[in-house]
Amino acid sequence: MKIGIDLGGTTMTVGAVSNENEIIAKIETDTRSDDGAERIIERMAQLTQKVIRQVNDNSITHIGIGCPGMLDRENGRVIYSNNLNWHDVDINKKLMSYFDVPVYLENDANCAALGEYKKGSGKNFNSMIMITLGTGIGGGVIIDNKLYRGKSGNSNILGHIVINTDGELCTCGRKGCWEAYASITALIRQAKEMAQEHKGSELFRLMEREGSLTGRSIFAAIHKGDYAAKQVFNRYIKYVSEGIIDIINIFDPQSIVIGGGISQQGEFLLKPIREIVEKNIYCGKDVMPYITASSLGNDAGIIGASCLNEY
Amino acid sequence: MKIGIDLGGTTMTVGAVSNENEIIAKIETDTRSDDGAERIIERMAQLTQKVIRQVNDNSITHIGIGCPGMLDRENGRVIYSNNLNWHDVDINKKLMSYFDVPVYLENDANCAALGEYKKGSGKNFNSMIMITLGTGIGGGVIIDNKLYRGKSGNSNILGHIVINTDGELCTCGRKGCWEAYASITALIRQAKEMAQEHKGSELFRLMEREGSLTGRSIFAAIHKGDYAAKQVFNRYIKYVSEGIIDIINIFDPQSIVIGGGISQQGEFLLKPIREIVEKNIYCGKDVMPYITASSLGNDAGIIGASCLNEY
Repeated sequence: MKIGIDLGGTTMTVGAVSNENEIIAKIETDTRSDDGAERIIERMAQLTQKVIRQVNDNSITHIGIGCPGMLDRENGRVIYSNNLNWHDVDINKKLMSYFDVPVYLENDANCAALGEYKKGSGKNFNSMIMITLGTGIGGGVIIDNKLYRGKSGNSNILGHIVINTDGELCTCGRKGCWEAYASITALIRQAKEMAQEHKGSELFRLMEREGSLTGRSIFAAIHKGDYAAKQVFNRYIKYVSEGIIDIINIFDPQSIVIGGGISQQGEFLLKPIREIVEKNIYCGKDVMPYITASSLGNDAGIIGASCLNEY
Repeated sequence: MKIGIDLGGTTMTVGAVSNENEIIAKIETDTRSDDGAERIIERMAQLTQKVIRQVNDNSITHIGIGCPGMLDRENGRVIYSNNLNWHDVDINKKLMSYFDVPVYLENDANCAALGEYKKGSGKNFNSMIMITLGTGIGGGVIIDNKLYRGKSGNSNILGHIVINTDGELCTCGRKGCWEAYASITALIRQAKEMAQEHKGSELFRLMEREGSLTGRSIFAAIHKGDYAAKQVFNRYIKYVSEGIIDIINIFDPQSIVIGGGISQQGEFLLKPIREIVEKNIYCGKDVMPYITASSLGNDAGIIGASCLNEY
């Protein structure tokens, strides 16, 4: 048995994972990043002990952690994580003081990609690119059955390719990044603007009633057939497709897996994306990869983290 | 000894290459694509025989061909080449009827990348991305000392990542591709527009005198300090950098090699590009790759093609 940990800025989840990559038990808790690294890692260890007791199996072989930010993977250190507000935290060493097993550290988006590749939508492919549409856009790349990491473990920053020179300001400081157009944050911004422009729309009414808009409420309006919401959807789909087309032109992958909450929209989201992508990729439909939704959801990161010993 | 052939839409060059990847002799001729595939391959064979006689060494081990277009590499066929106006040409088989040695076929941009990696600016790196700024933009990618080819040999279409959604129409049919902003063709278009807007500029005078503008004349005006030409240059540099930043965010490579005629501008071109890139890459200057100019120029494709037996 092995342990996979998904450490996010908001939530931390610890899973006990079988050698067949099934999650046997998992516990989720708030990260409470204000507590500081020391305290968070202590709670992470307690959660791990709890999971181990739950499954009544003390024989864990290793622990894998997926974590956002810039990492020094080889030395098991978080160099900087904006979401956690961590600077230079030697997480592996600290966690190893609780458990006498190897600890592996990897970027959270890479862990999600690895999870989908091992057990989810990517499992029949030897090249796969995972794109997570969430607050930002995360990317994970599997090439030739291996996690692609670049020279310093800082590749796959897929959210920060520019699709609009001098366009929307991105959180990274650059203008026009894909993330600034195709993340859920961007969708919400686009929907709010559209609602303001169309005060007779369902979208506007929703925004007034609920005080704001969320991914969920926007999709509710789209499914209701609201004209303003549909316009937002069509433009958003185009923005999502722009980045996917770029990624296909660059990587010519076998498969693209779309993750994040929005992927629950399934074919409603994927069908129009596939149509735009197929029409616009450079080498035409003969090189069209499979584009599917994540099948593991939030479990992908846990399963992927638990597999880090192999990669 | 081995043979490397660079087959372009305008020019075809055959080189005799030593096992140490030095070009011993080469002959260049017009491709004359109107002649049709049969005749061109016949002339390619004659040129190869001529090169072999020149170096007085009959012991060639193999022939490698770099060629633009969509290829079926394994079967040695050109599926479609816009530049050559070829449809389904079994080039390897035809050339093998003249020479009893193995023939290898690969995309021309990949051959150039391979050449720079083996013998040129990329030779000290195990991950390297070559970008050729010419009529279009070509891309070649070396990852872990191997040529990256994607699932169908159609990866690395780096010129066709969008930097401006709904922007300039690209020759590929998509709008806003990097190629439509950062190729030499795009530079010339930008300079012509600028010249029309500034009729008192050196750029305008040059265009009037020579009937048009070329990459060479534009750079002459830039070096003369013409204000309009300098404005074009600054914007062009920004466009070139946008794509390079994207590529670094995606690949985190050790090295980027810039090829094409414009790379002869050396540091004059590279210095401002490096400055923009370093400021804008997601992970900051710690992941900054080496950005250099091609050191082999047009020879890169020949040397790379001659190395195809190893890749």
